[in-house]
Amino acid sequence: MTAAPRPAPTARLGQNQYGKAETRVVRVVRDGAVHHLTDLNVSVALSGAMDEVHLSGSNATVLTTDATKNTVYAFARTHGIDSPEAFGIHLARHFTSSQASIHRARIRIESYGWQRIAEPDTGHSFVRDGREVRTAQVEFDGTTWQVLGGLKELTVLNSTDSEFWGFVKDPYTTLPETTDRVLATDVDARWRYGWNGAGEQPDWQALYPAVRSRLLSAFAGTYSYSLQQTLYAMGARVVEEVPEVEEVRLSLPNKHHFLVDLEPFGLTNDNEVYLAADRPYGLIEGTVLREGATAAIPTD
Amino acid sequence: MTAAPRPAPTARLGQNQYGKAETRVVRVVRDGAVHHLTDLNVSVALSGAMDEVHLSGSNATVLTTDATKNTVYAFARTHGIDSPEAFGIHLARHFTSSQASIHRARIRIESYGWQRIAEPDTGHSFVRDGREVRTAQVEFDGTTWQVLGGLKELTVLNSTDSEFWGFVKDPYTTLPETTDRVLATDVDARWRYGWNGAGEQPDWQALYPAVRSRLLSAFAGTYSYSLQQTLYAMGARVVEEVPEVEEVRLSLPNKHHFLVDLEPFGLTNDNEVYLAADRPYGLIEGTVLREGATAAIPTD
Amino acid sequence: MTAAPRPAPTARLGQNQYGKAETRVVRVVRDGAVHHLTDLNVSVALSGAMDEVHLSGSNATVLTTDATKNTVYAFARTHGIDSPEAFGIHLARHFTSSQASIHRARIRIESYGWQRIAEPDTGHSFVRDGREVRTAQVEFDGTTWQVLGGLKELTVLNSTDSEFWGFVKDPYTTLPETTDRVLATDVDARWRYGWNGAGEQPDWQALYPAVRSRLLSAFAGTYSYSLQQTLYAMGARVVEEVPEVEEVRLSLPNKHHFLVDLEPFGLTNDNEVYLAADRPYGLIEGTVLREGATAAIPTD
Amino acid sequence: MTAAPRPAPTARLGQNQYGKAETRVVRVVRDGAVHHLTDLNVSVALSGAMDEVHLSGSNATVLTTDATKNTVYAFARTHGIDSPEAFGIHLARHFTSSQASIHRARIRIESYGWQRIAEPDTGHSFVRDGREVRTAQVEFDGTTWQVLGGLKELTVLNSTDSEFWGFVKDPYTTLPETTDRVLATDVDARWRYGWNGAGEQPDWQALYPAVRSRLLSAFAGTYSYSLQQTLYAMGARVVEEVPEVEEVRLSLPNKHHFLVDLEPFGLTNDNEVYLAADRPYGLIEGTVLREGATAAIPTD
Repeated sequence: MTAAPRPAPTARLGQNQYGKAETRVVRVVRDGAVHHLTDLNVSVALSGAMDEVHLSGSNATVLTTDATKNTVYAFARTHGIDSPEAFGIHLARHFTSSQASIHRARIRIESYGWQRIAEPDTGHSFVRDGREVRTAQVEFDGTTWQVLGGLKELTVLNSTDSEFWGFVKDPYTTLPETTDRVLATDVDARWRYGWNGAGEQPDWQALYPAVRSRLLSAFAGTYSYSLQQTLYAMGARVVEEVPEVEEVRLSLPNKHHFLVDLEPFGLTNDNEVYLAADRPYGLIEGTVLREGATAAIPTD
Repeated sequence: MTAAPRPAPTARLGQNQYGKAETRVVRVVRDGAVHHLTDLNVSVALSGAMDEVHLSGSNATVLTTDATKNTVYAFARTHGIDSPEAFGIHLARHFTSSQASIHRARIRIESYGWQRIAEPDTGHSFVRDGREVRTAQVEFDGTTWQVLGGLKELTVLNSTDSEFWGFVKDPYTTLPETTDRVLATDVDARWRYGWNGAGEQPDWQALYPAVRSRLLSAFAGTYSYSLQQTLYAMGARVVEEVPEVEEVRLSLPNKHHFLVDLEPFGLTNDNEVYLAADRPYGLIEGTVLREGATAAIPTD
Repeated sequence: MTAAPRPAPTARLGQNQYGKAETRVVRVVRDGAVHHLTDLNVSVALSGAMDEVHLSGSNATVLTTDATKNTVYAFARTHGIDSPEAFGIHLARHFTSSQASIHRARIRIESYGWQRIAEPDTGHSFVRDGREVRTAQVEFDGTTWQVLGGLKELTVLNSTDSEFWGFVKDPYTTLPETTDRVLATDVDARWRYGWNGAGEQPDWQALYPAVRSRLLSAFAGTYSYSLQQTLYAMGARVVEEVPEVEEVRLSLPNKHHFLVDLEPFGLTNDNEVYLAADRPYGLIEGTVLREGATAAIPTD
Repeated sequence: MTAAPRPAPTARLGQNQYGKAETRVVRVVRDGAVHHLTDLNVSVALSGAMDEVHLSGSNATVLTTDATKNTVYAFARTHGIDSPEAFGIHLARHFTSSQASIHRARIRIESYGWQRIAEPDTGHSFVRDGREVRTAQVEFDGTTWQVLGGLKELTVLNSTDSEFWGFVKDPYTTLPETTDRVLATDVDARWRYGWNGAGEQPDWQALYPAVRSRLLSAFAGTYSYSLQQTLYAMGARVVEEVPEVEEVRLSLPNKHHFLVDLEPFGLTNDNEVYLAADRPYGLIEGTVLREGATAAIPTD
């Protein structure tokens, strides 16, 4: 290999990471005739002593992304997949401990739900439960752990108990006030667990539905004067009732449902017929923290 | 308007249709504090005496697509939405009977499911049940009705009881035979009802789950030697057990799950760890008919 | 293999087909330092003596979809890819002539364009030219050939010379008439070549740009009173000027650009600021035929 | 409005922002018969004194997202759209200066390219040039400006002059080394301009093609031993040759093209026939900075 010319002195390398994205692994565990199914999409991002590969193309410190993919499959066999979080912890610990050049690993996982087909219940027949995608992210730098749980594409709607009025009227404000509107959103949530590697791992499989049910019940049970208020209620409910969670980040598109004007056709429309709009949409984003916690989930 | 020049004699107009596609209508019915939600995506296609608009641009026989959209909203108010099929029948009858120039109407509808949020049960809080999209298609030419029910994006998987062997070996065949594989597909089904406009409409809302449950149970309960066999079993089950259905068309992608070779890592893989592939995929399509029925669902 | 039970007599098998969909093949031809790139997505659908595989699961007449995929790759090597149409013809002839059980083959191909990076022109550096996807479809039943060319996702816009007025006013019509609007669409076109297998194949690579340029020039050059008129002009231009084409099917969404009402802000809007809408959209579909030709492109 | 109960003391509000996302604005400027077209997708995110709306639902400090949408349309009329960056600067300055409660504005813009249809050149006929999406982001907190240019979905491929070998071999490494492979990626790039609000704005419309051409030429002209090396070369080329740019962040998926094994069919494959894979894919991300600059583009 001919040495590639070094870059002119005006440029330098900043933060960088690499790895195999979207490795799709499905694991079947057979408990006699009863099978259990896990369905994940795993993305690995590694960083460390990677200056040379950028500057000269030398791969001497580079674990191939193909090997990171192979590791995902091998670990599904050797460690099993108790939960996305536990699986990510196995992977992050492995990459940072087995290669001197790798100083930090971030594992992102999407988990897809399946239900059993009930009739007939063969023990091995499943139907995809598409309501939402569960997410997890594990970061480890050899010392400090950060574990995020999450979900996305959970679509919810309240057909009443939502108002919107009393807002600023600037010269570009034409929106009428309303005391009864549809409030709908696709919940995109990530939450940070307090677990830092010391002591036993918490029960990730129990925590996911615990958080999810709080998000849903706060959405349903909040009489809303703005989507921001609902967002805060959802995040606060989790922080207040799930002690393992330090911080929740929510991104909530306002899926506008506009009341259709039927007057031109001689019809009333008493909050009955709505147009579901695509774009543009309001986008409300915010973090709710446990008192004393420091925000660590990226806001961008 | 200056008359546009008529086309040279070598070209002539063939089949044509037009209308507003993807009108998104959400209807809320309030039964006291308990709300009911219907969420549709309606596409209208009309045809008839439309030569002039193509040849000279004269819109004298053209009902605007904007008006077809308005009709969808107005009918949601005046007729309600008892089922996608009944709603489509109202629309198709209206367009063909109210405009002399419109000779045929085809209404396609997607219906999105919602469940109630259980805790708290406010009566007005819903979560999108994304497992599949229900579809309906109604065609009417003023005389003859054709009603199709359907569903798509229903993802199912059997983790065993599927074999694949005994196939043709040509010079390009390298696939090994197997007696135990994962069988997974996204069910895309359309079925034609026998109802032709005479007599009462059948109970569309009861028929949809009746067909859906047959598709699921035949998928789960069929010990499969090929996806074609499973396809036929699914269609036949519907035709045999749901007398209102004359014909079923199924399009089933073979969502390949390849057993990962873990031997390079010193590991066995006894049908435990699979790679879920995206492309390419097998695509199996077929029609199953009631004996004596004539196929009418397009195969392309 | 235990014989699966035969279906009850009320069901029978109708039209069916199968094959590997979306095989992505890229071919590089090295002409010294100058490389040539072809990038295809190939879908194979076969039909024939396939009753047994549906009824009993016997695969004795089934060429695997995996073998059809392998054939695509092998033929890219042995036959090259002169054009999507010629490649499809090789494949369709092979499947129908080499397997007694296969009576009909339909090959669908998407072709993605690449341009050379000009600076520096290394001879082997390309940038994807994403303006549209070229499509081709070849069907062969052992006797009769049908070859369709096509394109999709070709987005075009006229910012004036489009009017829309003089339409039907029914009780649901509220759209104002206009004598100056934006007309925009995504062209989805398929055209049928007259070539039936007798004689030399036409020059497919020359015909594609010949048709495409007619579609573009007719769109640009037609002063339009309706999108239907523009559709007909586009199809007729092709039929009249490209003798190899018998029939054109066009599907044109009306990508609405609504003039924004700026009056509430004390501003005029003289056809300057538009809102580009997503859904709903008008959808205009139609076939234009050469005089004497019989329509064969599916309309659904 | 009944005051909503204040949250329990364990939760508190962190970073938050809101606004209208994906406002689609198209502007036509008529220079006699010659029209000019601008096509943007604008997303506004505002933050400031927004505690009350989260805690009690009071909207007293909330400018509606609907008003931010209206402002986009009005500003397209009053300020025109000289470039995405200049348009974003108008918007960000307006929101932060006109509302005391708004302390920071971030404007994200996607810009879609159109070319003139050449034959006939009507002056008002355009075809979408889909090769890539140009992006811009403007942030302003009343004092400090940050302007990012960018592009995404620019797909490029080198069919040779790419090697990959000399990498770490751990127990999960099975990838063979290669001295001639296809290197392909979708370029997703963002770059930060040094302009901080002092002095004239740079010529954004000239800078975009200046950066784009450097990215392309560095991709094409770099003999590559790894995608990381190519990434660094692309970023360094921009930093070294475009003085207005301080920092470049690149995210480059490795769009794997696997050489197909044709040996089972008795065929050689001398870097001719490739399988274009979808998932999983390597993902290489990195920042290149001007010496002395501080990284500010988010890495996550």
